[in-house]
Amino acid sequence: MENFVVGIDLGGTKIYTALANLKGELLAELIEPTEKEEKKLLNQLGTMVKAVIAKAGVAKEKVLGIGIGAPGTVDFRTGTIITVPNLPWQNYPLKVKLQALLRLPVEVDNDANLAALGEYKYGVGRGHRDMVYVTVSTGVGSGIIIDGQLYRGSSGSAGELGHTIVEPAGPRCNCGRRGCLEVMASGTAIGLRARQLIAEGYGQEILKRAQGKVEEVNARIVGEAFLAGDLEARAILKEAAFYLGIGLANVVNLLNPSLIALGGGVMNIGEPFLELVREELAEKVLPQPYKDLTVKKAELKAKTGVMGAVALALERFS
Amino acid sequence: MENFVVGIDLGGTKIYTALANLKGELLAELIEPTEKEEKKLLNQLGTMVKAVIAKAGVAKEKVLGIGIGAPGTVDFRTGTIITVPNLPWQNYPLKVKLQALLRLPVEVDNDANLAALGEYKYGVGRGHRDMVYVTVSTGVGSGIIIDGQLYRGSSGSAGELGHTIVEPAGPRCNCGRRGCLEVMASGTAIGLRARQLIAEGYGQEILKRAQGKVEEVNARIVGEAFLAGDLEARAILKEAAFYLGIGLANVVNLLNPSLIALGGGVMNIGEPFLELVREELAEKVLPQPYKDLTVKKAELKAKTGVMGAVALALERFS
Repeated sequence: MENFVVGIDLGGTKIYTALANLKGELLAELIEPTEKEEKKLLNQLGTMVKAVIAKAGVAKEKVLGIGIGAPGTVDFRTGTIITVPNLPWQNYPLKVKLQALLRLPVEVDNDANLAALGEYKYGVGRGHRDMVYVTVSTGVGSGIIIDGQLYRGSSGSAGELGHTIVEPAGPRCNCGRRGCLEVMASGTAIGLRARQLIAEGYGQEILKRAQGKVEEVNARIVGEAFLAGDLEARAILKEAAFYLGIGLANVVNLLNPSLIALGGGVMNIGEPFLELVREELAEKVLPQPYKDLTVKKAELKAKTGVMGAVALALERFS
Repeated sequence: MENFVVGIDLGGTKIYTALANLKGELLAELIEPTEKEEKKLLNQLGTMVKAVIAKAGVAKEKVLGIGIGAPGTVDFRTGTIITVPNLPWQNYPLKVKLQALLRLPVEVDNDANLAALGEYKYGVGRGHRDMVYVTVSTGVGSGIIIDGQLYRGSSGSAGELGHTIVEPAGPRCNCGRRGCLEVMASGTAIGLRARQLIAEGYGQEILKRAQGKVEEVNARIVGEAFLAGDLEARAILKEAAFYLGIGLANVVNLLNPSLIALGGGVMNIGEPFLELVREELAEKVLPQPYKDLTVKKAELKAKTGVMGAVALALERFS
């Protein structure tokens, strides 16, 4: 008798739900824009779970449980969403609420943790025992796999690479501190830096690609200009790579993983940007832990989060 | 029939050897200055092991093996000392050599790793599952305990907190990079900073404590001046604490340990300096991992290294 699990990647803009068998193969998937209202969002999750089960054509009794990845600070032990940008929940006991609604066991964890787990089980991390997954997009997040296990730390909040300090005199981060990796090298930081340069009269190639609208300049457009050979775009990305190099070198010097897997929108700029990051990292890391290190792009792309949620559900319920 | 192990803390200036029972209780101890010549040093280790066994009055056949902690880069898997400051060895297969000499099993690991293990098993780390031990002395080193196990990384070189970068524009470190924690906040850095200030005409209170000899000013003397209320000494230590705060906050944000244990000569300045470090750390760490964190001085003092070596021998041979 075959059993199944459901994985949910709960993002600020969209929700990605999938039903998987015990091998982690996806049998049905559903994607919807995220509801912006507290009550509606819970009902949406319930409806999507039922719909994805129905879509796969399996009986609800065969579903062992649900894994959910959510952005922001999540208390894994209680399944509570503490604070989260772009979602209507705060100190929200999602696990308890969704269990009551669906009468199925639920586990909730941070999305970067689950992305690390997804890449470790089903993506670029296969065969590695110690790896760090780093996502560079709106913010910078990370998840740590140690000896083949997701490492959550003593109270569930490990993996905050985005808030390690890489430039003590740097600008202030959303978290209130100065010079966090996130405020120096995220997609948000890259876009902001480009708009600042344009305001100072530079970056005309970048501005052209945004049809002259400075407010529409973002990391994606900077990336396009860089790939087209624009030197100002290159300088902006070189600076972000410099700080990513520090953040990654620090984690490699500390943890000596065999793999750094890089994901998130900014990494979609492509191989030339990854090469900048590799160069900066190589300069800043000790020879010993660098010798056995591989730095690669994450593989699962848009499915990274949902595969991590599936992996969590399989770990806990099968 | 009772068995025993031998632990060796191999330092650049002295060697601390002890024989312990299977509970980790020390039955005999020996301390000697370190031989400076390659061949003599190996023979010294052999002689000390025999002497400490004889001193305890136990039969050599009851000794299960030897654990050794050495400074610098050590390949734990082969027991080879790769590079080490202040010892006459380079790429030296200490494990193989000492095993051949004594016909006893030997394991060799980095001294900071073993100090972490010693404090975890017998010192301030008892009862913690996830802790980071940090030593601030001539250099800055660390050892990481994860889920009750010493974490060595994918190729044995984890724990290099001293070479995480905390000030990208900082001075050059011995390792060749800029602004490592070690070059910003070690005892060596504190002494150097004080001598620079004196050369510029400041730090007269500090200079007095060195009988006017600027070349004798070191971190210990800066610490004494600080405890006596000297504001210039305080400023020097505040700067070291600022960078220690960054390094520690970064490791706490990444690993969410329940304990940071601080050892090494610089921490002997005492509680007022530890308080500076705690303040800086508190400002730089995220609220979530900080909530469950304790920051304490290591407990085993001069015995930290040898107790770690004993713990290693007990793990591997008993």
